Amino acid sequence: MVAPPILARVFRGSRLESVHRGSVAVVDQDGSVVASAGSRREGIYLRSAAKPFQAMALLDAGGDKAFRLGSDEIALLCASHGGEPRHVRVAARLLSRGGFTVEDLACGAHLPMHEPSARALIAAGKTPTALHNNCSGKHAGLLLACRLRGFEPETYWKPEHPIQGVVLERLSAFASILPARIGTAVDGCSLPVFYMPLEALALGYARLIARRGTREGADETVPERICRAMWESPGMVAGKDRFTTEFLEAGRKRWIGKEGAEGVYSIGIAAGGKHGRSLGIAFKLEDGSSRARDAVALNILAQLDRLPASSEASLSRHLAPTVTNARGFDVGRIVADVPLRNL
Amino acid sequence: MVAPPILARVFRGSRLESVHRGSVAVVDQDGSVVASAGSRREGIYLRSAAKPFQAMALLDAGGDKAFRLGSDEIALLCASHGGEPRHVRVAARLLSRGGFTVEDLACGAHLPMHEPSARALIAAGKTPTALHNNCSGKHAGLLLACRLRGFEPETYWKPEHPIQGVVLERLSAFASILPARIGTAVDGCSLPVFYMPLEALALGYARLIARRGTREGADETVPERICRAMWESPGMVAGKDRFTTEFLEAGRKRWIGKEGAEGVYSIGIAAGGKHGRSLGIAFKLEDGSSRARDAVALNILAQLDRLPASSEASLSRHLAPTVTNARGFDVGRIVADVPLRNL
Repeated sequence: MVAPPILARVFRGSRLESVHRGSVAVVDQDGSVVASAGSRREGIYLRSAAKPFQAMALLDAGGDKAFRLGSDEIALLCASHGGEPRHVRVAARLLSRGGFTVEDLACGAHLPMHEPSARALIAAGKTPTALHNNCSGKHAGLLLACRLRGFEPETYWKPEHPIQGVVLERLSAFASILPARIGTAVDGCSLPVFYMPLEALALGYARLIARRGTREGADETVPERICRAMWESPGMVAGKDRFTTEFLEAGRKRWIGKEGAEGVYSIGIAAGGKHGRSLGIAFKLEDGSSRARDAVALNILAQLDRLPASSEASLSRHLAPTVTNARGFDVGRIVADVPLRNL
Repeated sequence: MVAPPILARVFRGSRLESVHRGSVAVVDQDGSVVASAGSRREGIYLRSAAKPFQAMALLDAGGDKAFRLGSDEIALLCASHGGEPRHVRVAARLLSRGGFTVEDLACGAHLPMHEPSARALIAAGKTPTALHNNCSGKHAGLLLACRLRGFEPETYWKPEHPIQGVVLERLSAFASILPARIGTAVDGCSLPVFYMPLEALALGYARLIARRGTREGADETVPERICRAMWESPGMVAGKDRFTTEFLEAGRKRWIGKEGAEGVYSIGIAAGGKHGRSLGIAFKLEDGSSRARDAVALNILAQLDRLPASSEASLSRHLAPTVTNARGFDVGRIVADVPLRNL
């Protein structure tokens, strides 16, 4: 196995301390490769980058109208949220629309990823529930989808449950890969996690933002509704102090982005400008870390000439993050420099 | 730059999800290379793997007797502790022996690394102090060293302070590298952090456990006292649920081990058995992560035929750690397989 290239370097003082390697795939909405680094055909687990497609199990069945979902609710379906009070509220609201409760969630509990929310919970003498799990919106959406489609909801999280077949079909259509060629394992939230080539994930995001990939007879507004929800409620997709939220705020109508665990990130860029094609970007840091992820995402966008100066300014703290220590001293920095080919 | 080899693989289900690369140096007490992987000459920041040598600034001046230090105190000098109540108590006791208080510590505050201790602190409505910083023992030791040596203690943490010169000289003697060839930057706790070839760190640990490297006229019992403290008070060196503590418990009189941030680990193995030489091992995971560190350490020991079956049994949960999810399901595992050369 050839080592993938270094995508980001971590400096302490003037010297290199650590590096992050990885692979990148950039394709257009037709699947043509626009650029790559490392192995674009490398198989990866999508982790939470699959959430917009998992949300389709509900939206494709008309869940939007049936459960009166606003952008907050739809954005939370696609979220790896911080477990802030607002996220917990919307997750509970989603559940209640289908007559479900927190007991029906199979995601398990963990402390809010948003640290101040975690501290507030502990300080109040409370323990986290499944609503605080960053995947609670996705899980609530699958429960609602079961209600709407007449599936028994108890085992919605098992790979053999019919709702998982619906998810697989949607992912397959957007990523343009046969369901039989999509591998599965168990995700952090106990749902099936999907495995496919990096470039297939990139294509899924290109087609999502291009509103392609919908099957015959499907509601063609679903991909658009998902993108609109992410732009209208970016705080629901991630949360306070999170890159994805600021990235969505900066890229309204221009791009969507979603992180996955283990160093995965995926971006859809809307057609426009001199390029005239929708693009999908997917990358994975081979060590599974996240600290260089945001800088790598922005570096790729800049190299593709798709990062306007105004966005570069508003996202500047993510471009070359500083490394600080316990006293807040600036002791180093993370520098992304992705060796893209085929530009 | 040639990529270092994969030292550990992270599987989810049956498929590879992430990998950790790195370099390894194994040398004997005379500096002869016993085995290596990747680049043993690679420059690395030692981070907390330097702590036993930093502790010598106090012990070499007779701090042991002057401040009536027991094994708990000496072990804490070398610690990246969990900020458990016992660690906070011993750190405060160290300070009080020299008439210092928490206000004199320059390490900064962070929440205890030991999560239950962090939660207990938050639940009690308290904020962490510098005593909870994992480096508080090291800092307290340097303050005591200043007192004993007649240095003004206020700026003990600055690179130009004379106590830092003492530390540098000790590290230089054990690692057998000229002070001028040891680079520095700022560590997470604001002290100088040292930069040198990986194999020099390995040699430092080989000589530490072999009780070599002491300069003319120095108290020759200091290296032995440090090792003994780590064996007698392993819980002070790291803490509950920490590999280093269990590793020290399992290796009493056989080995010492100490982690550093950014994927660093260093081990000294006492002479004995058919090998008859003291060995030093140092490795760094290039991505700076720690999740595979313990498994990599044990894999190297096993390959060197220095991991007895009894230790393998007591440390079994660190050999091939399972990856669990929010519901506690076993969803994957970390497998270390270090391609050592020159065995």
